[in-house]
Amino acid sequence: MARPTNLPVDPARIAEVIDGLARLTEPGRPYTRRAFTALFPAGRDFLLEKFRAAGLETRIDAAGNLIGRRAGRKPGSGTIMLGSHSDTVPDGGRYDGIAGVAVALEVARALADKGIVLDHDLEIVDFLAEEVSIFGVSCIGSRGMAGVLPEDWLSRESNGLTLEEGIREAGGDPARIAAEARRDIAAFLELHIEQGPVLESEKLDIGVVTAIAGITRIEIVVEGRADHAGTTPMGRRADALAAAARLVTGIEALATSLSEGPGHFTATVGEFSIEPNAANVVPSRARLLIDARAEERAAMDLFSASVDRLAEQVARETGTATAPPRRISDNMPTPGDPLVLDVLDAACEAVGARHRRMASGAGHDTAFMAKVTRAAMIFVPCLGGRSHAPEEFAETDDIALGAAVLFNAVIQLDETLIQEGA
Amino acid sequence: MARPTNLPVDPARIAEVIDGLARLTEPGRPYTRRAFTALFPAGRDFLLEKFRAAGLETRIDAAGNLIGRRAGRKPGSGTIMLGSHSDTVPDGGRYDGIAGVAVALEVARALADKGIVLDHDLEIVDFLAEEVSIFGVSCIGSRGMAGVLPEDWLSRESNGLTLEEGIREAGGDPARIAAEARRDIAAFLELHIEQGPVLESEKLDIGVVTAIAGITRIEIVVEGRADHAGTTPMGRRADALAAAARLVTGIEALATSLSEGPGHFTATVGEFSIEPNAANVVPSRARLLIDARAEERAAMDLFSASVDRLAEQVARETGTATAPPRRISDNMPTPGDPLVLDVLDAACEAVGARHRRMASGAGHDTAFMAKVTRAAMIFVPCLGGRSHAPEEFAETDDIALGAAVLFNAVIQLDETLIQEGA
Repeated sequence: MARPTNLPVDPARIAEVIDGLARLTEPGRPYTRRAFTALFPAGRDFLLEKFRAAGLETRIDAAGNLIGRRAGRKPGSGTIMLGSHSDTVPDGGRYDGIAGVAVALEVARALADKGIVLDHDLEIVDFLAEEVSIFGVSCIGSRGMAGVLPEDWLSRESNGLTLEEGIREAGGDPARIAAEARRDIAAFLELHIEQGPVLESEKLDIGVVTAIAGITRIEIVVEGRADHAGTTPMGRRADALAAAARLVTGIEALATSLSEGPGHFTATVGEFSIEPNAANVVPSRARLLIDARAEERAAMDLFSASVDRLAEQVARETGTATAPPRRISDNMPTPGDPLVLDVLDAACEAVGARHRRMASGAGHDTAFMAKVTRAAMIFVPCLGGRSHAPEEFAETDDIALGAAVLFNAVIQLDETLIQEGA
Repeated sequence: MARPTNLPVDPARIAEVIDGLARLTEPGRPYTRRAFTALFPAGRDFLLEKFRAAGLETRIDAAGNLIGRRAGRKPGSGTIMLGSHSDTVPDGGRYDGIAGVAVALEVARALADKGIVLDHDLEIVDFLAEEVSIFGVSCIGSRGMAGVLPEDWLSRESNGLTLEEGIREAGGDPARIAAEARRDIAAFLELHIEQGPVLESEKLDIGVVTAIAGITRIEIVVEGRADHAGTTPMGRRADALAAAARLVTGIEALATSLSEGPGHFTATVGEFSIEPNAANVVPSRARLLIDARAEERAAMDLFSASVDRLAEQVARETGTATAPPRRISDNMPTPGDPLVLDVLDAACEAVGARHRRMASGAGHDTAFMAKVTRAAMIFVPCLGGRSHAPEEFAETDDIALGAAVLFNAVIQLDETLIQEGA
């Protein structure tokens, strides 16, 4: 693609950070650097060195987040923060989270290069354990920074380690997480790869993220009857798989219909199993887990009520028993801050980036930062929409263009928020 | 139910054999007495003692079958044989196979009690390992007796034992199985519990089995694409589960339609799994295994061709790839011998048993005996159609009525077959 030139950021420095972290992967298992595992501190040391070399004052906060700071000209104005996470999923990619940390650092360096000192303090952050970690939960660092990390999570155990010990080993101070919850942040920005196919297929540079979808997980268990597959006539069965198949088809149809509405909507049956799973036995039980994601809460409510009705109807038609679908978890959507979204749109225009507004179907640290400040994020395209896999890829030029958007947005927010605060 | 009285058989003696074998079960795991496991010889010893007490000449044949014999009046007329199997599935029942062995013994005793000596030799048999055993295959004894036991099965191993050694430990002589394949059997009869709900729900006493259904196993593998469940729009997915669900629904509809035809037909998706089976990933792969059973080969051919077309159609509609459905195994149906079926119908009438003709959806030793002689079987009702489970149950009176049917049929066959052979 033809690219805007004379960007205020240096693509080579961004690539150097991404490549440097990519080298710190579990041997033979690219690209794996999970939080709370042996290799994670190596990534942190690499970043710490880079943060310091950029002239930033560094620290680890109580929740184990690595922070680089440059003081602003007007003490007490609050902090403009940028960041993402450096941990990966198993066999995960080189860009998910990492691109956002590299870009945050590059924005700090670009400001310094140009001698720009903000009125606000500037902080860049590598959040601890954004991905589902060995403790089975996600976004430890951003939840902690926002003061919403459930206290009972600290006693979770994995491999003989508690989460409390894990945070301490990462340099945090679990006892002080609640006390250190941030209230001084004036705005938070995050760049992330899209992890979906929309920008690539529409040949766009930047997605300005209107909302992070709420995620609701719904479990359905169908109880049928284990009959002999050869001797039980077709009309006399209570086949749990046949019933579950109708549910899957019905859920897909509901989700497709809702996805044609105004906001982002997806629903996926990702977990599915049957019992006894034997060739010559009519399935007696099926379990399915729906992952539904909605930008608009109303769409989720409609979906959930429709799934309840669908389950009743399928049970009636198939002679199976289905307990009412159970919400395993249920999180609200997080809208992006309107002022920040406008600033991001303007920044895209300023650097010549082709952009659109879109929702995020994936969860991000920004969702927790939005609990304590004006927050929003941008997406850059990634190859084939792939993520959480070794082949995850994003062009350095695309990431650099995103960095330029954030650079412009930070300068604009520094000005706008001071005026607003005045 | 009102029962015919003055039966030529003794229900108490039948119950004593069934109860005696039921006591020989793995401790704490009723009712388990699998072939080639420690408890199986105890059941065999119990039967051997009973066979001898009935005045039968006993032996173990080359394939490990326990045989009790009483010579007929006309040497060279051949053998009328009755039998079934004493081995069980894990957690299996008290009647599957066992009722047929107990009834064969009771017929021999009832003939002796009444001083009836047949023209034919009479043999009763406990076939070795009818159920899928530790070696993963079924009907060892009847395959062996019919001379169709695949030779390479002898080297199958389980728990450090080969099938060859297992047959030898059961008293057989694997090297002589082929040489001893029987060609002298004039007719074979088996009683078995129905393992289905038809007789019970129609309040009938006896099913005269027109055919043992052919079993065809068809595997379908659907290849989709593992996308992020939150970020991939509904219209851009290749969801292997969504495709597989349509297959399950289509297969059920095809089978239901074919089951309304003249012969027995069932099809069941008993094995079903997806990958990666993770809540937040669109399923990339689904595997399903169909167990289809047909009394009429034409129905199976029609089903199989329809499944091929269904798989193509679903792949086209869902954007997934499906390799052509693969026949893992494919066995022809085994019709009952017409002469023997007529004799069985007449025997039912003679003892006042309410009867119907019906197919067997399950496999049985009779299917292999039919390769070397006139063979047919009868069903007796079982509670709720349950089998292969601890709660498997059949009324002693129902089994005794079946024994009376076989008693009459044996006498009739002895006469008819001598005339025919003459």
